[in-house]
Formats: sequence, C-alpha cells, structure tokens
Amino acid sequence: MPAQTVEKWDIFEAAFEGPSEGNPYLDVAFDAVFRHKAREIRVPGFYDGEGTYRLRFMPETEGDWTFETRSKTPALNGKTGSFSVTAPSEGNHGPVRVRNKFHFAYADGKPFLSFGTTCYAWTHQPLEEQEKTLETLAKTGFNKIRMGVFPKDYPYNTNEALHDVYEVVNGKRDFDKPNYDSFRHFETQIGRLRDLGIEADVIMFHPYDRWGYCDMSEEQDYRFVAYIAARFAAYRNLWWALANEYDFMIDTKPMERWDRFFQILEEDDPYRHLKSIHNGHADANYDHRKPWVSHTCIQNPNVKNTQVWRNTWGKPVINDEPEYEGDIIQCWGNLTPEELTHRFWITMMRGGYAGHGETYSHPDDLLWWAKGGVLHGEAWKRIAFLRQVLEEDVQNGFEPIGPENLWPWHRISGAKDGDTTIIYFGEHQPVIWTLGLPKVDGNYQLDLIDVWNMTITPLEKVKAPENHPIRHGEIMRPREPDAAFAVELPRRPYLAVRCRKLS
Amino acid sequence: MPAQTVEKWDIFEAAFEGPSEGNPYLDVAFDAVFRHKAREIRVPGFYDGEGTYRLRFMPETEGDWTFETRSKTPALNGKTGSFSVTAPSEGNHGPVRVRNKFHFAYADGKPFLSFGTTCYAWTHQPLEEQEKTLETLAKTGFNKIRMGVFPKDYPYNTNEALHDVYEVVNGKRDFDKPNYDSFRHFETQIGRLRDLGIEADVIMFHPYDRWGYCDMSEEQDYRFVAYIAARFAAYRNLWWALANEYDFMIDTKPMERWDRFFQILEEDDPYRHLKSIHNGHADANYDHRKPWVSHTCIQNPNVKNTQVWRNTWGKPVINDEPEYEGDIIQCWGNLTPEELTHRFWITMMRGGYAGHGETYSHPDDLLWWAKGGVLHGEAWKRIAFLRQVLEEDVQNGFEPIGPENLWPWHRISGAKDGDTTIIYFGEHQPVIWTLGLPKVDGNYQLDLIDVWNMTITPLEKVKAPENHPIRHGEIMRPREPDAAFAVELPRRPYLAVRCRKLS
Repeated sequence: MPAQTVEKWDIFEAAFEGPSEGNPYLDVAFDAVFRHKAREIRVPGFYDGEGTYRLRFMPETEGDWTFETRSKTPALNGKTGSFSVTAPSEGNHGPVRVRNKFHFAYADGKPFLSFGTTCYAWTHQPLEEQEKTLETLAKTGFNKIRMGVFPKDYPYNTNEALHDVYEVVNGKRDFDKPNYDSFRHFETQIGRLRDLGIEADVIMFHPYDRWGYCDMSEEQDYRFVAYIAARFAAYRNLWWALANEYDFMIDTKPMERWDRFFQILEEDDPYRHLKSIHNGHADANYDHRKPWVSHTCIQNPNVKNTQVWRNTWGKPVINDEPEYEGDIIQCWGNLTPEELTHRFWITMMRGGYAGHGETYSHPDDLLWWAKGGVLHGEAWKRIAFLRQVLEEDVQNGFEPIGPENLWPWHRISGAKDGDTTIIYFGEHQPVIWTLGLPKVDGNYQLDLIDVWNMTITPLEKVKAPENHPIRHGEIMRPREPDAAFAVELPRRPYLAVRCRKLS
Repeated sequence: MPAQTVEKWDIFEAAFEGPSEGNPYLDVAFDAVFRHKAREIRVPGFYDGEGTYRLRFMPETEGDWTFETRSKTPALNGKTGSFSVTAPSEGNHGPVRVRNKFHFAYADGKPFLSFGTTCYAWTHQPLEEQEKTLETLAKTGFNKIRMGVFPKDYPYNTNEALHDVYEVVNGKRDFDKPNYDSFRHFETQIGRLRDLGIEADVIMFHPYDRWGYCDMSEEQDYRFVAYIAARFAAYRNLWWALANEYDFMIDTKPMERWDRFFQILEEDDPYRHLKSIHNGHADANYDHRKPWVSHTCIQNPNVKNTQVWRNTWGKPVINDEPEYEGDIIQCWGNLTPEELTHRFWITMMRGGYAGHGETYSHPDDLLWWAKGGVLHGEAWKRIAFLRQVLEEDVQNGFEPIGPENLWPWHRISGAKDGDTTIIYFGEHQPVIWTLGLPKVDGNYQLDLIDVWNMTITPLEKVKAPENHPIRHGEIMRPREPDAAFAVELPRRPYLAVRCRKLS
C-alpha cells in the first residue's frame, strides 16, 4: 500500500526538477497517465518556474492509484509514483456537476443551489483587502464567486494589480513568460474559497484591460488556457468561465477561438469541470447549445424570461448579472436592494439561478463587485435567507410550476421540488390565493415568507373562492383552477407562500 | 344661409319618420350624402325604434352644408336639408388622430397624450353608480376610458345589466331586435364623457358573456358593427376597440371576421376614428400592421419592450393592461400602486402609452375596472401627475432616447420632446447621472421629479465624471458619453430627471 494518501476530490501533487534554461513554458511539454484498476486518466503537467515542474490530480475514486509521466524531456519522462485515495472528509462533497438537466449537485449527490457573487479582481488587491474579502464571504450565504485571472481596468479600478500575470521584460509584458507567483497566489485563493465552501468561477478573459492581456496572440491565448487547465483543474471547487462579456472582444478573438478554448478544456481538464461563457449585450449570447457548454451563463435584467432561456439552450441557467445593487452611474450597477432581492426570487422561482454584485460608490473606490472587501448593501442578507429557505426543501432542484406563458405563471413566479411548492408574488399583492396550491386536500404546512423582512409565519387554510363559470372560449383561456383551499395574505409586496405536504 | 347651425366636430342630427312594421333593423336601409362645396361624404343612417330613423353627421369643415337621403324605402329617400357649420367652441378640439407615427393629437393640432383607464361595464350599472363614475372621472387625470357596449359576466360582475342590449322575446334575446333604449343610454354616456374631455374607447366584443352576445351569428355581428358605426361615429370622442381579448373568441369568430369588422368601420365611419383590437394572451397579438388598424393595443406587463412593439407594428402603442393596481386573486389585477405607477412611467418614457385599471376587492363587488364608481387606490393620482408633467412640455410626442437595446436605455428609460428630456430611473438609484443630458453646455433648467411623492425640485449642475478610457472593444461597447455636466441624485427609487433647454 502506498505511503502517500489523499482524500477523494482533493489534490494529489507531485513535483519534478527539470530544465530551467530557455523558455520551459514554451518548449517543455509533459503529462502523466494516472491509473486505478483498469482506468487510465491523462493529466497534463505544468511548469512552475525555477526548474520545477508539477503534476496535479484530483482523484474521483477511492483506492490505490499510480502514475507515470511522459515527456520528450528526459528529466520529466517515466517518473512514477503511487498514492492511496481515502474517503472524503466532512464538508468535501466533490466538484459541482449538472444534475436533472437544469440544476446542479456536488459529486456526492448533495444538491447545489448556486448563489453566486462577483468580485472580479479581488485577488489583485492588496493582501489585507483580500483577507477582508474572505472574512466577508465567510459571513454571507454565497457559495460561488466570479473572479478573473487577469486584473481589471475600469472605472473604480485604476489601481495597479498585486501581481503582473506575465513577466515585465524591458518595461513590456512578455506573454510567453508567466509570472508564476501570480498563478501561485491565484490558486491559493481558489483553495481558500474551497475551504469556505465556495466555488471559484474563474474568468479567463475579459475586455477591461490596460496591460495587454486582452491582446495576446492566438497562440498565447491557447497556451494560457492550457496552462491554467493543467494548473487549476485539480481544485474541486473550480468552474471555468471563459469570459466576462466575450462579445466585447469578438473583434480580436473570433468565435472559432472561443470554441477552441472550450475544446482545450475538454482535452486538458480530465474532470470536466463546469464550463460556460458570459455575454455583454443581451442579444449576443454564445450558442450555449454547443456540446462543450455545461450550463448557460448570461447577463439579463428581464428575469421573468428565465424559462425562455432554459428552453432555448436546454441547460441550467445562471444569470450572473440581473443587474447589481448599488448607486453608481453605470446603469447595470444601481439597483435598489429590494429590486435585486426581487430578481433573485423571480429567477429561482422560474428554475434558474441568479448572481449577486454590489456597487455602492466609495471614497476609495472599494466596490465589492470588483475589489471585494466589505459589503455595504442589504440584498446579500436576503439572498442568504433565500438560500436557507430553498435548501430546507431542495431535492432535485426547484422546477417552475409554469408554463411561463400561461396564467398566472407569466406574471407570478412559482416552483416545486418534491412535496414543496413556493409561490413568489413580488410586485403582486393578492389578499387571497389558490393557484399552484394542491387540488386535493390533505395534511399541508402553509407558511407566509416575507422575503425582505426575512420572516416565516404560518398561514391557515381558508375556503377557496368558487370558480366563476367560463361560458365562452373555454378552450382558449385557463380557468381558475380548482384548488382544495386558499390562503389569505396581507396586502403588500415581496411575499411568498410555501406549501409543504406533510406525511 | 341655413337656419340650423352646428359647431365643427359636433353632431348634426336629423330624424325622419319611416316604416315601423316588420323589422326595420333588418329590412330598411338608408344613408345620405352630405355636401360642402365640392366635397361629398356618404353617411349611413340608422333606425332608432318606433318608426324613427336618424342621420348623424360630424362636420369637419366650417361653412354651409347640405344633405340628401337615399333609400329604397320611399319615406326615407330624397329628404334634403341644410345647415351651417361654425367654429368649434372652447374645449372642442375635434377627434383624436394619429400624429407623428407613434403619437396622437386632436384634429385641431393639440397633442393628445393618452392616459386611459378601464371601466368595462360602467354603463350597465345602476344609474346612481354611473353618476359616481362620472364624478370620479371628473377629478382624475384620465382622458380615455375603455368601456363595452355589452355587459360583463365575470368574477365580481354577476349582477344584471341596466339594459338588455337586444330585446328579450319569449325569454330569449333576439339579436335581430336591438333594444334602442340601451343604445340611446350608451351614447348619452359617450356624450357625457366628451363633455368631460374624455375619449370613449368603445369595446365592441368581449368573451365575458352569459347573455349570448358573444355567440351572435356572423350576419348579426356584421349588422351590429354597422349599426353602432352609423349610430356612434358622429361623436368626436369615439374610438373603436373591436375587442377586449379577441383571441379568446377566435373559436367562434375567426380572424377573417375581425378583419371584416375593421372593413365595415372603414366603410361606415366617414371620420375614420381610431381603430384597434386588443389581445388576451401576450403571444396572440392581432397583426397591427394591417392597414385598417390605426394604433396598436395590447396587454403586456413587460413594459420595457415598448419600443419593440413600436418597431414591430410601426404605429402608436397603447398598452391598455400593463396589469392593474389591486389585490384580487386574478393575477392581472393585484399590482402595488408603486408598480403600476412605475410601469406608466416606463411606458411613456419609451414612447408608448399605458392604461390604468383598479381592482381592489370590495364587499359589494364594486371594482372600478368593471363597474366604475369610486377609486380606492393610489396610482391614479400619480398618473394624473405624470400627465401634468408631460403636458407641460409635449410638442410632437415624447420619443425614446434609445436605442432600446444599447446602454443605458435597455435598463433606464428616457424620452425627449422638443428641448425637453426626461430620464426615468425607476428601480435604479444612481447618485450621479450624465447619460441623456446635453453634450454641450448651455442654459438648462434641471429638475428632480419624485414620481411617487409627486414633487418637482430644482437640481444643480455638477461636474461630469471623467470618462474612463476604453482600451479594448471600443467598437463593440457604448462608452460613457461625454456629457457637459452631471446631476447628483438622492439614493432612492422612483425618481426622474427633467432637463429643459432655456432660450
């Protein structure tokens, strides 16, 4: 039995000394074959500077494993080793996968309801700010964060990055020479997020650039993608986000290149982490039906269209930017907290997943959405409450009651999972309600959820109003459904009703 | 010079005795040719019961007119008369027409900003209720009302109508025998609305019926349309609404029949009053591009799509039902007043016109949207305020700043007319703003409009934030426009900024 052990879905790492002369990043290739019983998995290795080469592997099966390296470089060829994979420890649920077509779960089967936030450039801020970000994240209910490998140049983001991502040679970045410290730091933070139970949705490319990262050559782009695949893929909490707003770079990175990025990940990420790509303009979505896309990422404020997006692409929908809470001049970043909370509820109650961002102006330009730090807003608390509400009942994923183009589900949002139905009224304030409630009476627990005040209070069944006869056009119009009972509600916005069937 | 005078756009009426035996409604036809100088206008007449036949004519040209009747019925043939048309009196602006492609104006050129409400069956309620409705309307800012010729059978509308619209013979309605009292009463109320400055948007057909009106034969339908055209068209405040929710009747009244209704109006309404038709399902719009449709009527809660509807049909858009303020179980009738006010502002700031309805539950089922009476809500006051704000500046009609799919106008709503720009933020709460404000400095009056609290307060110009350089994707992305100045705003929802250029 091998001496070294690693737990399932954790990282096995091996390092090798090899050539440091020339440019190993360009010139030296090596990979390894990992074997368990009859299984063989090809795992690319990567150069980590100063003559050190590394292999990282995330085992998904318990038991004994061996590996053997392959390279044209003799020092990196034929290296072997073995290790034993133990059961995962508590809190290690493995990577997140698509489950039930429109939903997610960890590899161990635990449902994953995506509650993401965005701090595009948090790993490029001073270290003490990064500590604050992690402290804040530990207090929130977010379980995913969007973050860029490259730093950000944008309003409120004019400071220099903590690290250059590539070496600066004679005052110019050399995109053939990674700054290994920068990648080391980035993956350290991926690991710290993992330890907080947070998925790292790693954005590869974005247009908000003054350093030239955005204008690397095609070859440099491909090498970058392969490099971070080899380097980061063994982190179980990793998601691949090919771009923030890829369409704003389509002038220099054509569609074929984006397709190829996906293909490189298919080749070099043996674990097939979740992969998606995010648009800028609402009408410039990538074709998420392509086979290498695991889920749909979009930005779109029209959250009542969530089912349309599900139907269009047939995959889970994450609306990363249903606009952000804040008060800045940029029109995507000045929603009231009530409205962002509302959009989260609508999205989740229509079978999708929404993303958070916060952009309150700050005297030192410390805005959460890019730099992290601390939160100043109000929506994040309600989002944590929503997560808690849904996680109490989730089994397969909340599916919209729908159909979304028929009464009342074109106006009201509601979803079911197992024996639990939740109906979210939002801007609607009926004082009595039946639709979506059970058609056969039984033992039900009924609760009123105040999504803003974060309270849950019991509701009583009352007699359902009688159906008014429809004497004309019966086929054409949905009648008031026969519900076994009704609930009475206070007349105010931002309420939901939860109905649980008790055994 | 003729002894009889009538003012321009008022009603000239002449009555004739004719046969009362048999069924004159079916058997007797007559019309007249009205002449002024070289003009000849054919005007259909109508039977008004008890041997009385009437001709109604709305003259649109001042001066001397004559007419001569034509009929196969000798008593109604060759009758002549003359009258003189005088200038319109104050408050008489003539009928409303389409102007500037997406807008309306009275015939005298005064802009008409449509601020409609809905009381489907108000003329079918007890007379004292009808008086209340008129008293209420006199206090509001509504200048259009949707109302049905036929009574309504629907939840909260189970009472009997004031009049049968057709005679009841042996316990059964005979749709070949109009109840002339019913039509007389209806047109009296059209006239009273006219005297309040309110357009009567007369709904011909609707599916909410228990009396059989909805199931008249094709021939009876056509005769009904021709009859009310002959009878009502001379009212200058008349609009033709072919249906409320025509698609819920498409099983018995196919599309060809709806087209034919429009054609009958084209033939029998010599003044070409505004004509439209209103859908039930959001995806069942009539093809408003058809030449006989003057403007687009829809019901749709997604008011940020207003420009899409303008572009689709190329005509003024009236969204009669962006959902209603209220608290009833029906999902279209339980918006908060804040939300309905918000949807009005968005619609108007995107170049459309919204419609009001109010459906608060009431112990005696007296809901404004169907029965009229009194208003219980809050939105109507804010809608009157919006009308007042826009009428202060309207010249050609408020056109969206747009384009609606580009930053920031896909998220923020704003419109211009003449030298006035209004930007409505709604659910957005920026503390500083530039977009849509003038690019060249000058003498501007700047105001903050609180659309809910109905206040207007002056704003100061402040220095515009500097543009952050866009270093990549410049073609693809709208940059922050160079505005000459900015305004600072309080951080709260439901605000608008008005900018007027002063000479």
